[in-house]
Amino acid sequence: MNLNFIIHNNDPSSKGRVGQFTTAHGVIETPAFMPVGTQATVKAMDPQEVGDMGYRLILANTYHLFLRPGHETIKRLGGLHKFMAWPGAILTDSGGFQVFSLKGLCQVSDEGVRFASHLDGARSMITPELCVRIQEDMGVDIIMALDQMAFPDDGPEKVAKALERTTHWAERCLSARTREDSAMFGIVQGGFDPHLRRESAHKLVALGFDGYAIGGLSVGESKQTMRAMIEATAPALPESKPRYLMGVGTPDDLVVAASMGVDMFDCVMPTRNARNGSLFTSGGKVNIRNASHAEDEGPLDPECHCPTCQRFSRAYLRHIFMAGEILAMRLLTMHNLAFYAKRMEMIKDAIRNNSLGAWALELSNEMDNAVVDETPFRNI
Amino acid sequence: MNLNFIIHNNDPSSKGRVGQFTTAHGVIETPAFMPVGTQATVKAMDPQEVGDMGYRLILANTYHLFLRPGHETIKRLGGLHKFMAWPGAILTDSGGFQVFSLKGLCQVSDEGVRFASHLDGARSMITPELCVRIQEDMGVDIIMALDQMAFPDDGPEKVAKALERTTHWAERCLSARTREDSAMFGIVQGGFDPHLRRESAHKLVALGFDGYAIGGLSVGESKQTMRAMIEATAPALPESKPRYLMGVGTPDDLVVAASMGVDMFDCVMPTRNARNGSLFTSGGKVNIRNASHAEDEGPLDPECHCPTCQRFSRAYLRHIFMAGEILAMRLLTMHNLAFYAKRMEMIKDAIRNNSLGAWALELSNEMDNAVVDETPFRNI
Repeated sequence: MNLNFIIHNNDPSSKGRVGQFTTAHGVIETPAFMPVGTQATVKAMDPQEVGDMGYRLILANTYHLFLRPGHETIKRLGGLHKFMAWPGAILTDSGGFQVFSLKGLCQVSDEGVRFASHLDGARSMITPELCVRIQEDMGVDIIMALDQMAFPDDGPEKVAKALERTTHWAERCLSARTREDSAMFGIVQGGFDPHLRRESAHKLVALGFDGYAIGGLSVGESKQTMRAMIEATAPALPESKPRYLMGVGTPDDLVVAASMGVDMFDCVMPTRNARNGSLFTSGGKVNIRNASHAEDEGPLDPECHCPTCQRFSRAYLRHIFMAGEILAMRLLTMHNLAFYAKRMEMIKDAIRNNSLGAWALELSNEMDNAVVDETPFRNI
Repeated sequence: MNLNFIIHNNDPSSKGRVGQFTTAHGVIETPAFMPVGTQATVKAMDPQEVGDMGYRLILANTYHLFLRPGHETIKRLGGLHKFMAWPGAILTDSGGFQVFSLKGLCQVSDEGVRFASHLDGARSMITPELCVRIQEDMGVDIIMALDQMAFPDDGPEKVAKALERTTHWAERCLSARTREDSAMFGIVQGGFDPHLRRESAHKLVALGFDGYAIGGLSVGESKQTMRAMIEATAPALPESKPRYLMGVGTPDDLVVAASMGVDMFDCVMPTRNARNGSLFTSGGKVNIRNASHAEDEGPLDPECHCPTCQRFSRAYLRHIFMAGEILAMRLLTMHNLAFYAKRMEMIKDAIRNNSLGAWALELSNEMDNAVVDETPFRNI
C-alpha cells in the first residue's frame, strides 16, 4: 500500500519536514513518535488514553506476539487492531532486533534466524517469508522487513555480511507480500560505517519500499556516532518516502534527528522510565523517588496539561510510587507519553517556523558537552 | 456529624432496607459496597474510574497511611480527598484490625496498641486518641473507633477482655473528637459468642455513635458462624443508624447480609481477586488463566456493561494477564468492581421489590451445601 506521503513544510534552517502519510487506519502526521506496545499493549495504558494523547500510530512487536499469543490466534480473532482495541495504525518491528538481542540463543543463516524462545526455550525459525506472514496475519499497517543488525563490536567483515544478508532478506520480504492494505519498510544497516550505511540505503532504495528505517542504532553508541550515521543515511533515502529512526530516543534526540530529516521514531524510554520513576518535565528530569517531593503539593510539571499533572501532586505521585501502587505506573506513564506528544508538536511547530535548525544545533552542542551519555538502549 | 440516615424502603420478606446517608462529601445510597483503597488508591484504578462506576464512598486505611506518608503530611497537603483526588466520601478503618494482624509485632494494653511497622520495624503506639487524631487530620467523612478484635482461637476470657477494652476505647474515641464534619462509628466485637456480641452492641449503643460496625468477622470462620454473628448483632443495633459489616465479602455474602439488615460493606475481594485473574461474572467465577479462554473472542461477561467487557475479548485479557501486563490488572479490576456495583443495584432492587428474602434464602442454602467455603480473609 502506497502511504501517499505528503510533505507540507520544509524547514530551510535544517532538513526537517512536516508531512503526513495515510494508512488503512488513519492519517499520520509526521514527524511522529510511536509509543511502544511490545505485547499488544502500551505498558500501563488503556488504548483509549493513548489515542486521547493524540497518538495515531503505535509500534508492536512481531517476535513477542509470534511467541505469545501467536499470529494465527490474532488472525482468527480478527487481527491485531481488534484484538487490542486500538483503532489507530500499527507498525510492527520485524523481530530481527529482538532475536539478535538473544545472542547466544540464536543462529543466523541465509535461510533465516533460528532461536530459542525467551519464554520457554521452544525452538523456532523466522525466515523473511514467515516474518511477512506473521505481520500480514496480524493485519498491521506497516510491516518491517526482516533485517540482520551488526553488533557494536563486530569487525568490518561481519558488518558487511549482515548488510548483504539484510538486502537479500529485504528482497525476499517484498516478494512474500500478499496483502494490499499494508505498507512495507526496509531497514538500513551497515554498523557505524558511513560508507556501508550509504551502500545499504542505495540497495534498499533500488528494491523500492514504502518507507525506510535506520536500524542498528541506539545500542549504546555515542550521540556523535548516532548523528554521523543518520547524516550518512538520511540523504541517501528518497525525499518522497518516510524515514524511520528505530529505537530512538530521548526528547532531545527527537529534535536533532528530526532536523536531519527523520520522520518517525519509537522508543521505550517514556514508558520504561516512567515505571522506574524517572519523568521528563519542562524543568528537566525528575526522579519521583526523591525525598524532596514528599511534601510537594505542586504538579510534576506546571506547564503540562496531562490528566496526571492536572489532578495530582508530586507528593501523591511519590507516595503511590514508593508504595508500589499500579496507579503510579499509570499516572507517570501518562505524563511521559504526554511530554513526548507535546515534544513532537513543538518539533512540528519549529519546522513550520523555520527554527528547528537553531534548536537542534543548541541541543547537539549540549549533548557534545555532556559528561554522561544518555543514549537509550533498546528493549528486547 | 449526624449522617441523617433515612430509610426509603423496608423489605417485608427480610430485614433488608434501602436508604441513604449524607456526608460532607455527598449522599451515599445504602446498602453500599466500599471499594478498598488501602494506601490512598483503589488498587489499579484511577479515582475517576471508581466514580464512573457509581461508587460514592471508599475505604482507606488508617494504619497504612499513618506509616506512609503520615497523617501530618496528608493534613498539610489539604486532606486525604485532595491528596488522592477523590471527590466522594471516605471511611477509614481504625487500624485496629491491621495492627492485630501483625500479632507477634504488637502488644496491647489498656493505653493502646504498641507495634512495629511492617515497613521498617519502627515502633509506634496507637491510642484511641491518636487513632481519632490521625483520621481527623486526614479529614475523612467516617471515622472508625479503635477496637480490639478477638482471634478465632481466643478463649472466652480473652474475648470478653477484648470486648471490654473495645468499649473503653470507644468511649475515649468519642471524647477525643474535635471535628464537626466527620461521623464516627463504633465497632461491635465479642468473638463468635452471640451473647457477647449483643453485650458489645448494647454498650456501644449506650455511648451513641453515628453508625455501628460488626467487626472481627471474615477471619476464616464458616458462613454459618458469620450469619449467626450478624443475626445476634444487627437487631441489637438501632434501626435509625447505618450498620456496617467489616471485611465482607463475596457477592453472595452481600445479599445474605443485606437481608439481615446490614447497610455497608467493604472487601478486598473484587480488587485482589482481579489481580489474581479471578473474575466474577453473571455465569459464575472465571479464571482468566484458563487455556480455554485463549481463543475466546467473547467478552468476560456478556451481561456486563463495563468498559472491559464492552471492548476486550477473553482471549486478549488472558494474553495480557499471562504476559504480566499492567493493563490486565486495570481491566480485570474494573470488571470486578463493576460486578460488585451491579450486585448492589440488584440488592437494592430486590429490597424495593420485596424479594430479597427469597434470594438470600436460596443463597444461604447454597452456601450451607457448598463443600468449599470461600469466606474472604481480610487484608492487613
